[in-house]
Amino acid sequence: MHSTFHLHKSRLEALVDGVFAIAMTILVLEVKVPTLSDPHSASELGHALAHDVSVIGAYFFSFAMLGIFWIWHHRLAAKIKEIDLPLLVCSLTFLSLVCFFPFAAALFGRYPSNVLALMIYVPLIGLILVSQLLFFWVAVRRHQILDTVSASEVASAHSRNLQGFSAYLFGLSFSMLRMNISLTVICILASGFIFWRSRVSKIQVT
Amino acid sequence: MHSTFHLHKSRLEALVDGVFAIAMTILVLEVKVPTLSDPHSASELGHALAHDVSVIGAYFFSFAMLGIFWIWHHRLAAKIKEIDLPLLVCSLTFLSLVCFFPFAAALFGRYPSNVLALMIYVPLIGLILVSQLLFFWVAVRRHQILDTVSASEVASAHSRNLQGFSAYLFGLSFSMLRMNISLTVICILASGFIFWRSRVSKIQVT
Amino acid sequence: MHSTFHLHKSRLEALVDGVFAIAMTILVLEVKVPTLSDPHSASELGHALAHDVSVIGAYFFSFAMLGIFWIWHHRLAAKIKEIDLPLLVCSLTFLSLVCFFPFAAALFGRYPSNVLALMIYVPLIGLILVSQLLFFWVAVRRHQILDTVSASEVASAHSRNLQGFSAYLFGLSFSMLRMNISLTVICILASGFIFWRSRVSKIQVT
Amino acid sequence: MHSTFHLHKSRLEALVDGVFAIAMTILVLEVKVPTLSDPHSASELGHALAHDVSVIGAYFFSFAMLGIFWIWHHRLAAKIKEIDLPLLVCSLTFLSLVCFFPFAAALFGRYPSNVLALMIYVPLIGLILVSQLLFFWVAVRRHQILDTVSASEVASAHSRNLQGFSAYLFGLSFSMLRMNISLTVICILASGFIFWRSRVSKIQVT
Repeated sequence: MHSTFHLHKSRLEALVDGVFAIAMTILVLEVKVPTLSDPHSASELGHALAHDVSVIGAYFFSFAMLGIFWIWHHRLAAKIKEIDLPLLVCSLTFLSLVCFFPFAAALFGRYPSNVLALMIYVPLIGLILVSQLLFFWVAVRRHQILDTVSASEVASAHSRNLQGFSAYLFGLSFSMLRMNISLTVICILASGFIFWRSRVSKIQVT
Repeated sequence: MHSTFHLHKSRLEALVDGVFAIAMTILVLEVKVPTLSDPHSASELGHALAHDVSVIGAYFFSFAMLGIFWIWHHRLAAKIKEIDLPLLVCSLTFLSLVCFFPFAAALFGRYPSNVLALMIYVPLIGLILVSQLLFFWVAVRRHQILDTVSASEVASAHSRNLQGFSAYLFGLSFSMLRMNISLTVICILASGFIFWRSRVSKIQVT
Repeated sequence: MHSTFHLHKSRLEALVDGVFAIAMTILVLEVKVPTLSDPHSASELGHALAHDVSVIGAYFFSFAMLGIFWIWHHRLAAKIKEIDLPLLVCSLTFLSLVCFFPFAAALFGRYPSNVLALMIYVPLIGLILVSQLLFFWVAVRRHQILDTVSASEVASAHSRNLQGFSAYLFGLSFSMLRMNISLTVICILASGFIFWRSRVSKIQVT
Repeated sequence: MHSTFHLHKSRLEALVDGVFAIAMTILVLEVKVPTLSDPHSASELGHALAHDVSVIGAYFFSFAMLGIFWIWHHRLAAKIKEIDLPLLVCSLTFLSLVCFFPFAAALFGRYPSNVLALMIYVPLIGLILVSQLLFFWVAVRRHQILDTVSASEVASAHSRNLQGFSAYLFGLSFSMLRMNISLTVICILASGFIFWRSRVSKIQVT
């Protein structure tokens, strides 16, 4: 059964585009229209919206994150030959995390000063990045890379993936500062190590 | 009129992808951002989210189910020549059940220990599977299978459909344990019978 | 400016598919998960859902209506050469009414016995049908019908459109019974007249 | 890395269509089904909906605005060769504003007489127009215009963009009347200046 399994890549792409379009639009549903005692009062509305400033800020930041994930996915998927079962599982895992992202963004936007909200939002971004790394790594291992893509392109795509993850870990170390200093150090070290790996392992990937 | 009726398959595929993308994303809308008395308290947020654990678990499980339905549909639809009126009715019935799925998932996620919530969620999955079985069976009966698809491929697709439904009935028998022991036995017997049919009827389908 | 105006048909089709996919899925958002005092009580949940039966019934009826509109639109659009400005205005009017449909369906599902809810839901269906009639009529008048479509196909498509609208008026006459007997008679007469026109005017359209 | 960066235009188009389809449909979510004390009372429902008239009016106006943005974007994008990084940033900025539009529309529909709601809604439209202007201007500067598009077509597209923005400023001057007379005069002058530029600068763009 598995040997004959295949799904047209265009189908997965359509689902990915749909999921991203909705996740991006749903982000804004969390910004609620406030209820005013005096509908004509601009100052009361301004006051009510001032409370939502962190939600609106989180909206634009989360939108940018989704935009980056979307571009990243399509740049990797453009190098793939065919979606077999392991790649499909990677892709659906990736999409289930992307669909979950608006909730984490809403939580973080509502409670920006709450450590737990941050500890859900930031690791979720990490998981999404890891599912992308895995997607490409599985594709390389299973020889599902298009023949038109040269070995050096594959290597530099993989190394860019690692560098992106390294940048994420570096950013993570700052948010860790509010939690625990030793975790911050671990993040910085891991970030540095992965960045070094991404420069060194270039040739081994092919 | 019916003799000249046809709809480009790509249109139905686009609608199916759209509906699945939205249903997958809407699943997470049921996970609500809790209202905290102290916005800075991580423990209060943790406490509030602990109540939502079953909702979050149901989200990932329901997402996986939708993913399976989506792959299943596209693997069957890839073998179809053209969407005529009976196939369109099957497809729209399938989609109306898929659109209803997020509500059943939300009900089950909110009240996992409620027998009625389970008795809506699980049979809905069964109905979706049956609408898929019917879709392919109608396509075979109306000779709408692509010429490039061999008779043995059709037979094994049909037999895989039956095996999937048999697996569902086997799973159903466990959830029936909470209801009624004789229903459990009926489910196991039906599961076994359909599995046996799926092995035997291989040749008859063509 | 208008002479050079054109939009790729595939773009409009993609927007139409997206809007229908979302409108179909949003219909079910109106079916709310009830709040139970005892989460384990199946009878309390059953009681709560019994109140929603009209909402759930309205969901499946409204889904079927959207399905019919969607098929109708694509069968007409498949005969069109290019989307010029007047056709675009017709299409966007059609889509704005389709997007408004979930609200009318929710209103009708919540208050099925309320005359005003019915008087919003049913005329909205009529407006959607009229916008479709107009779309095709404008396309014929502006010679935007594909050359591969014969004159008799155009005539029978137009006559099917009129017959569909006539069937709608006939259905309307029943819901009018609750309002006013003379309006019922007017609807039946209009339905008959349009049906007669649809048989007679066949040749004139081309 | 940037030199080899590219994204298939069809992917961006699919995301744009998806985002617009959802933003259009989400607009209507703000029109809430009222809660009635007597579900059978047409007059009570009529009374409740009368309060929503401004919301429903804002819905159709906002839908028309989104329709115009959508057509505008696709007419510009049809002239583009490839989506490079700066164009992608422009497009995602445009989409993030479009996704934010339903919130501003809901705010304006709920509080049409509130100056601040107007001062969020109207400038947002302006920002969306500017992001479109910028998108095309960047494409021209980076020589990403298709070879099949003549220099005079590019010039007239650019001049139409400016005229659209000038029309927006002219409309803005009316809504400014409620705020401040000198801002009104500035808007009218700016509108006139940009309109004059759009006529004069025709040749310079190429």
